[in-house]
Amino acid sequence: MTIDTNQLVKELLKGNRRAAARLMTLAESMSPEAHAAIKQLYPHTGSAHIIGVTGPPGSGKSTLVDKIIKEYRDQGKTVGVVAVDPSSPFTGGALLGDRIRMSRFSTDPGVFIRSMGSRGSLGGLAWATYDIVHILDALGKDIIIVETVGAGQAEVNIIQIAETIVLLSIPGLGDDIQTIKAGVMEIGDIFAINKADLDGADRRYAELEMALGLDRTSDGWEHPIIKVIATTGEGVEELVKAIQQHHEYLVTSGKIKQNQERRFCAQLETIVEHSFMRKLFVDPEERKLFQKLVQEVCERKTDPYTAAERLILQLIQPQDT
Amino acid sequence: MTIDTNQLVKELLKGNRRAAARLMTLAESMSPEAHAAIKQLYPHTGSAHIIGVTGPPGSGKSTLVDKIIKEYRDQGKTVGVVAVDPSSPFTGGALLGDRIRMSRFSTDPGVFIRSMGSRGSLGGLAWATYDIVHILDALGKDIIIVETVGAGQAEVNIIQIAETIVLLSIPGLGDDIQTIKAGVMEIGDIFAINKADLDGADRRYAELEMALGLDRTSDGWEHPIIKVIATTGEGVEELVKAIQQHHEYLVTSGKIKQNQERRFCAQLETIVEHSFMRKLFVDPEERKLFQKLVQEVCERKTDPYTAAERLILQLIQPQDT
Repeated sequence: MTIDTNQLVKELLKGNRRAAARLMTLAESMSPEAHAAIKQLYPHTGSAHIIGVTGPPGSGKSTLVDKIIKEYRDQGKTVGVVAVDPSSPFTGGALLGDRIRMSRFSTDPGVFIRSMGSRGSLGGLAWATYDIVHILDALGKDIIIVETVGAGQAEVNIIQIAETIVLLSIPGLGDDIQTIKAGVMEIGDIFAINKADLDGADRRYAELEMALGLDRTSDGWEHPIIKVIATTGEGVEELVKAIQQHHEYLVTSGKIKQNQERRFCAQLETIVEHSFMRKLFVDPEERKLFQKLVQEVCERKTDPYTAAERLILQLIQPQDT
Repeated sequence: MTIDTNQLVKELLKGNRRAAARLMTLAESMSPEAHAAIKQLYPHTGSAHIIGVTGPPGSGKSTLVDKIIKEYRDQGKTVGVVAVDPSSPFTGGALLGDRIRMSRFSTDPGVFIRSMGSRGSLGGLAWATYDIVHILDALGKDIIIVETVGAGQAEVNIIQIAETIVLLSIPGLGDDIQTIKAGVMEIGDIFAINKADLDGADRRYAELEMALGLDRTSDGWEHPIIKVIATTGEGVEELVKAIQQHHEYLVTSGKIKQNQERRFCAQLETIVEHSFMRKLFVDPEERKLFQKLVQEVCERKTDPYTAAERLILQLIQPQDT
């Protein structure tokens, strides 16, 4: 069966959800059809506001994102969500919880939620996330939320596509030093403290304030700290207001273009890197050499550097070998 | 000033700690001297038992590793430690806590501890970790511990070098689903529950037992679950015994060779990938094209896929452009 990507893209641009879902599946499997489709739909992207929500496991991201969706829906805006969990490198597939979430909004045509576990490499996951965001954008969603576990380099790559980043934390257990030391603070535009009814919420607030310190307004944006209770929805209105204010700030200050360039750099790096690695592992000759070199490294006949150099040389100048 | 890597390697092989420290600094900065040194010392590696300790932030990894070091020292074994924290992508540098740790063992010549924050890319961090393990191995350490925050793809890359992996967890807060779903379970050889005196330790034990389920002994190794209290050292003796039993199991079953091959594959991938990306960003022509293409993607004159293809083409066939 051949896939008619022209037709799929045409349907997508008319707002067809099924076409969107099929294109996302193609994107997740990194098929050449997906690439062809992204090329076609790409000129139709760029109008959504892309929001990243990230935080540690158990901080209540999904619950919060549900409430954010509701808030935007009440404003009449359409919402797309990509929920990415890279913490599970070997087991693919969505969680039960995600399936429950999806069905909660399944009767609302203004909401489209996609969950991704991690299949294959990290680069692949970040890449597929970019593609799915582009698809949601071309589908015409006003707001796109990228939700991912924080806060390693992996997640930074994934969240790289967002224009406004909400960094979520919770009061308690062993978080303090983590937050204070976390250079990841530097990627947050807005800080949300969930489970604000728990003991320690005020302390967490003070810690964040201290960690933000004097740099807080250095770029003309006063990184707000907002307490929420995701389960009841308390504080979510204020949070969404802050997200919208950040968007206005980006537009008014002209930073939206500037940041876009930085983000595209990072995205392009991820795609180039991953494309290269695919080349390496698709070519059977290259694959054979790879296996042979691994053996030699195991037997300590060669070292990893020499092996890597030989592999790259073969790939860069295939005609000389 | 030129660096005499021959001399450094010679000193290292005699057990000189200063030479080891200098080589590690070179490795962290990815200098060509480091590569030359690793090539030379590589044939002298392969005799240490490499142990990985990973777990979420706040699970008490550092405290536990300190107690493990002590246990091995009581047995008369020498220990090297690489503590990696990739959760801080923008801020380099060791933490105060690490500096305190290092000074605690600073009078013991049988212990060598190195802390790394994340500088540059993830691939770079994993790579530098491999190098530092090789350096500790060549320095003659009997036991090498790689300590890193779990459990994303990032950490999986870093921990990839370990022969025995201890997965640490703690009772409580929002962890349950995470653990149960975490495919990361598949990478643990031994499961340790820290803070076993806290409420919920028994529940965590039961959850782990359930999650391990019927597959628990499928490979001939009964993945033990061990309760510890890192602060007091309770259970650490039992944990170290389990680590040693795992090593014996690897040797007796012949899995040590088999696993080594799998690990070297992953390491080589990381090195090849990172080397390629360095080539991309070192070449000024390539860099210029990269910037130009980012601009075009921003302006939506081209799409990320087409841009990536052009970059790779130029790199693979520089003579044709």
